[in-house]
Amino acid sequence: MMTLIVNLLITAALTSSYVDPFIGTAGMGHTFPGACVPFGAIQLSPDTDTIPHNVGGKYQKRVYDHCAGYRYEDPTIVGFSHRHLSGTGHSDLGDILLMPVPTPRGGDPALSPGTADRPEKGYRSRYTHETESASPGYYAVDLTDYGIRAELTATARVGVHRYSFPEGDPGTVVLDLGHGIYNYDGKVRWTTLRVENDTLLTGFRLTDGWSRTNYTYFAISFSKPIRRYGSEDRKQPAYKGFWRRFDTRHDFPDMAGADLAAWFSFEGEGPLTVKVSISAVDAAGAVRNLRAEGDGTFDEIAREARRKWTEELSRFRSEGTEAQLTMFYTSLYHTMINPSVYMDVDGQYRGIDGNIHRAEGFTNYTVFSLWDTYRAEHPLLGLFHPDRNADMIRSMVEHWKQNAVGMLPVWSLMGSEGWCMSGYHAVPVLADAIVKGTCPNPEEALEAMVATSKVAVYEGLGDYMDKGYVPYDKSTTAASTTLEYAYDDWTVAAAARKLGRAEIAQEYERRALNYRNVFDPATGYARPRYGDGSFKDPFSIDQTFGEGFIEGNSRNFSFHVPQDVPGLIEVMGGEKVFLERLEALFQSDLDPVYYADNEDIEKECLIGGYVHGNEPSHHVPYLFAWTGKPWLTQYWVREIMNRMYRSGIDGLGGNDDCGQMSAWYIFSALGFYPVCPGTDRYILGAPYLPRILVTLPNGKTLEIRAPGVSDRNRYVKDFRINGIPVERLYVTQDEVLAGGVWEFVMTDRPARRRTLEKP
Amino acid sequence: MMTLIVNLLITAALTSSYVDPFIGTAGMGHTFPGACVPFGAIQLSPDTDTIPHNVGGKYQKRVYDHCAGYRYEDPTIVGFSHRHLSGTGHSDLGDILLMPVPTPRGGDPALSPGTADRPEKGYRSRYTHETESASPGYYAVDLTDYGIRAELTATARVGVHRYSFPEGDPGTVVLDLGHGIYNYDGKVRWTTLRVENDTLLTGFRLTDGWSRTNYTYFAISFSKPIRRYGSEDRKQPAYKGFWRRFDTRHDFPDMAGADLAAWFSFEGEGPLTVKVSISAVDAAGAVRNLRAEGDGTFDEIAREARRKWTEELSRFRSEGTEAQLTMFYTSLYHTMINPSVYMDVDGQYRGIDGNIHRAEGFTNYTVFSLWDTYRAEHPLLGLFHPDRNADMIRSMVEHWKQNAVGMLPVWSLMGSEGWCMSGYHAVPVLADAIVKGTCPNPEEALEAMVATSKVAVYEGLGDYMDKGYVPYDKSTTAASTTLEYAYDDWTVAAAARKLGRAEIAQEYERRALNYRNVFDPATGYARPRYGDGSFKDPFSIDQTFGEGFIEGNSRNFSFHVPQDVPGLIEVMGGEKVFLERLEALFQSDLDPVYYADNEDIEKECLIGGYVHGNEPSHHVPYLFAWTGKPWLTQYWVREIMNRMYRSGIDGLGGNDDCGQMSAWYIFSALGFYPVCPGTDRYILGAPYLPRILVTLPNGKTLEIRAPGVSDRNRYVKDFRINGIPVERLYVTQDEVLAGGVWEFVMTDRPARRRTLEKP
Repeated sequence: MMTLIVNLLITAALTSSYVDPFIGTAGMGHTFPGACVPFGAIQLSPDTDTIPHNVGGKYQKRVYDHCAGYRYEDPTIVGFSHRHLSGTGHSDLGDILLMPVPTPRGGDPALSPGTADRPEKGYRSRYTHETESASPGYYAVDLTDYGIRAELTATARVGVHRYSFPEGDPGTVVLDLGHGIYNYDGKVRWTTLRVENDTLLTGFRLTDGWSRTNYTYFAISFSKPIRRYGSEDRKQPAYKGFWRRFDTRHDFPDMAGADLAAWFSFEGEGPLTVKVSISAVDAAGAVRNLRAEGDGTFDEIAREARRKWTEELSRFRSEGTEAQLTMFYTSLYHTMINPSVYMDVDGQYRGIDGNIHRAEGFTNYTVFSLWDTYRAEHPLLGLFHPDRNADMIRSMVEHWKQNAVGMLPVWSLMGSEGWCMSGYHAVPVLADAIVKGTCPNPEEALEAMVATSKVAVYEGLGDYMDKGYVPYDKSTTAASTTLEYAYDDWTVAAAARKLGRAEIAQEYERRALNYRNVFDPATGYARPRYGDGSFKDPFSIDQTFGEGFIEGNSRNFSFHVPQDVPGLIEVMGGEKVFLERLEALFQSDLDPVYYADNEDIEKECLIGGYVHGNEPSHHVPYLFAWTGKPWLTQYWVREIMNRMYRSGIDGLGGNDDCGQMSAWYIFSALGFYPVCPGTDRYILGAPYLPRILVTLPNGKTLEIRAPGVSDRNRYVKDFRINGIPVERLYVTQDEVLAGGVWEFVMTDRPARRRTLEKP
Repeated sequence: MMTLIVNLLITAALTSSYVDPFIGTAGMGHTFPGACVPFGAIQLSPDTDTIPHNVGGKYQKRVYDHCAGYRYEDPTIVGFSHRHLSGTGHSDLGDILLMPVPTPRGGDPALSPGTADRPEKGYRSRYTHETESASPGYYAVDLTDYGIRAELTATARVGVHRYSFPEGDPGTVVLDLGHGIYNYDGKVRWTTLRVENDTLLTGFRLTDGWSRTNYTYFAISFSKPIRRYGSEDRKQPAYKGFWRRFDTRHDFPDMAGADLAAWFSFEGEGPLTVKVSISAVDAAGAVRNLRAEGDGTFDEIAREARRKWTEELSRFRSEGTEAQLTMFYTSLYHTMINPSVYMDVDGQYRGIDGNIHRAEGFTNYTVFSLWDTYRAEHPLLGLFHPDRNADMIRSMVEHWKQNAVGMLPVWSLMGSEGWCMSGYHAVPVLADAIVKGTCPNPEEALEAMVATSKVAVYEGLGDYMDKGYVPYDKSTTAASTTLEYAYDDWTVAAAARKLGRAEIAQEYERRALNYRNVFDPATGYARPRYGDGSFKDPFSIDQTFGEGFIEGNSRNFSFHVPQDVPGLIEVMGGEKVFLERLEALFQSDLDPVYYADNEDIEKECLIGGYVHGNEPSHHVPYLFAWTGKPWLTQYWVREIMNRMYRSGIDGLGGNDDCGQMSAWYIFSALGFYPVCPGTDRYILGAPYLPRILVTLPNGKTLEIRAPGVSDRNRYVKDFRINGIPVERLYVTQDEVLAGGVWEFVMTDRPARRRTLEKP
């Protein structure tokens, strides 16, 4: 039997070949094409422009497109920098940019980046997509202005560059410490740069970006000796005595500045290999990281990076068309970029208290985009990478201990709290792991969850605790935030139940019902209320901005009660109304007036009024399971997969959001989805591919078969686990982890089957 | 006999009483009146203005006056900050300013400092000198606008404030993290501030001042709980999501900004005691420092600070008039402020490589104003505090190991190299200790000295090694720098001889003769030369600026050959010319045209053309020992002591320069001076006081007697050590350390004595 499967499924070694890192680099995806290893600290990738976040205090709209540093449509490459966020809608990083340039025949190379339309004015270069390639752990491009081939690869903490210069030129490299993503005048607060010897640099950069206080130390080693070098602080400090003692512009090994760029010319034959490590602790930490991980040739490191990806990707071996497999493995790849390691090889890391901590017995992570990732990314990691997810949870609990505000992370970013989006969604991540038995120190985790949910100064939370809802006079997102708090609270209750803490469970079961306080009984839609109890009036269920919601209007966001769908059905006015509204959501077009000014929604990202690019919708197509038409989940989920995840550079129907969009895709492709993290249940849809063989973390295998599945045969007629019919619309964590063979019998029409058990 | 001495000399306990920290706080001294312990990391002192270093790129002259933060003539106090340099002519620091203010009845207190003429516009206050007092380890003042009494004391790493608010007001404190000395827009690169609990703050400040990359972490504890608080970043960063989640202006415990000020209002009865510790390592280090040293009440800590001072000061017990004792003990006090401890209680400190190091078996120090202090301050410390001086040397050697430029410190300041002034004068400090047998790891020290002297990129040093002088076309201070290098080189030779390294000794004895290359044979004065060998023409021996010298014209600086006075006499044209020039230096007035634009010379700081406020002159009055009129040393040294060190707030005739001016005074008061550190000899002058009893570090005592000494009886007729006549014009290190009784017989006219042995 196994032999047969192997023949039908792609081989493990081939899984990496189906990853296309360019998917999402145009359009809405905000992904980057560069090199990294799974969950690595380094994301080494080309940056194709230098759009400042604002000019003279005025926000520059185009900066949003450049969240990941790279835009496929840009004509030039500015250079290669070492840290990137994957798929965010707000951004930062782009740290430690290197750019190879020809060695000037006389004088110094340009230290300004130049402009996209006049690249010759600076160090940037044109490039062509014909010469460009990207695969897991590898990126390459020709810099056509210079005739230089640039290749990138990475370990967890080291970015590796190989620059092949034209014959006869030993090469020059520009290091721009003022470069950054979402840069603004002042984001780079200070940098230092030391030439330790003729093949080693160290340095420091302190930035105040989205990560408000971001310490980035680095070490850079070169495979060939430096012949001469120079630098310029393009924002010359007001007074310094150094100039009197030195020519600080040339061969001065102790550089610093607020906008420092340097260049290094080399001697010797052959390509130049540059290895760059980072540390948030100190330069000595960066050197240790470099020594621990920087051994080996470029090719060896690239092979190891690909091996690591293949090891992770080949846990899933699938059958499908070229395009389907590409989308499947690229999505899987995108679920394993963020969160990212944030710790030196010796276990030291910088906490959000600014102090140096040592991670005892775990790996510390950062980049927790929790408003997004609590939904599917963390459940996916918890299911298939439970140890890694447990370390992420430990990282969150340590963040809580270090946090002056006393909260688990909201948006953790490089030793800082970014406070982006709403809710306290680390709580459902911890709760989900507690309920599923994979949370380390669950009692402490519960303590952190309870403490987090009681920080009265956090957005309207004091009022929420007093009144049962966030008043609209206190928060512009009062209605959606109330829905989010209520769900988060329900997960506290679920975790407390699991841990036998009945008193806490009861308290939070009560709080979980707070969602009802923002439902307008007159309409059955969520609607913001003022502190005096009155509902906002006038009010539009189609408008997002100004109507008390965030990234979703009331028509979408009112479905955000995953913890109590029967209750939601009741407040909406019964199952009939509920189903009508669900159906209408997908079928009735949203008037463009409601999204014309919205940078993260475009026409092609809509399915009726359903906006998949905004996460509050992600569980909604699965809510048909609570209605008399459960097959509509099968219909619409496949529709979303086909339309929002196209296998092209602009194929993603929204920001990938640190893997959340991709995790939704993977779950949906497998045929089940965690509608309510904090339960051990997954709601069933239908498999997208005819066969997937999953190696589970416990060593068992789960084979999911849906022979003949297609856009036509998208409906499930029958579902059996190891041959035994399953008369439910959900499966449990235990059932997934038990492995075996799941057989879905597909059909081309809605299959009423016997009456199935609702979730 | 001893009993009698005790009766005549002041008691040990009284020594502290003679210290007047206000001396030098007006005029040229640039001292501060605040609280510190000997060599402590904290110098907690009032700052009386906020003169920016520059406005719109234009240097503000008045900032020079405010090097120490405090000017006696200023009418207001801005607040109390924790680090100050003692007596420098360039400045920095003023870190972590606190100011007690009345608790507003409604609203928030002002977070701008206001101005000197309109203090009511900000948080600063008027004060009067009548209510002000300062003594070793203690400072107090009434803030008259507020009716608040402020008192300050300190441990090595903790500044302690006691604020007595008017009846009924529990008090408010402003913390201004944007405040600084030699401040400019951008000096404060970033600050963070956390409210850890209702009595503890921690934070971080990164500054780019004279100390180019200065990490200052701090911890602040309050004796009463915070009731409410607020903050403002007066330079609001461009974008932040925080505002959406919080009222970040009030009770938000995780503050940050580039120009952050905060206020804290307290509850509870009685005075508020505030304890502030600093660390360059991290906030956790600051908390450890606070816990290790911050125990005790304000009064207990103040008593302990005074006890520490008395312990140090009472090594010298003197007899003299009130004014003489005041000047003696105040000078002694000023020799023990800088260098300052730069290390946490656990031995961790930040190196100039930016990394965290642990000082193994020594205390790490910073603030090495070596161009000044190699002359007398380090010889004084080496003689009377050899263990401390040895630790300072270890600190310098570690600095060398960490320095990308490969040099011992030039001007070490808070984990940075300030590159102020010229030469490589750590070398004579190490050499002096090697020659005197007090240098730790002398072989390694010699290695550091040799390496330092060969850094070709350092100011003209490559040319100096090639041509034997620094060419004027390469350095504006080419002549004086050549003289300095040559002297420093001689000390390398002396140290190498001592260590039996004949080859190095020979090499550096040759280099030491380089001084001759900048002496113009036509005039016998030092004069800058171009790279082609020609002398600068025209050239003025009276002008400093633009004529190849620094802080001294050729008339003064030509005497800077302490390593080879006989050789100098020869190049000057023989002893007659040499003596004439020495005499003329003190007797012929310098035309004001030569110092009118010079911020560090005023008319009253001149004795003829001799400028004591500029250190290149310090050994000059002792050079009469090499002539037929050695008594002129006795005459002019006492003249300098009387005129340049007056016991008043404006009594110092120049910047105290981290103790160098004061160390000159102490040596001169004892009757001998280290004209050439790197030898074991001190040139004799005459004691200033009739009796001084010195407790030597080896436990022996040295009693120096000069009965009847006075301005009239300023000449030495006879000198005996333990009754044995000394027929020399110098004493040796061994003779000093042997202790016993030195008896000077004084007379009112130049005493030719028998022919004395020249040095």
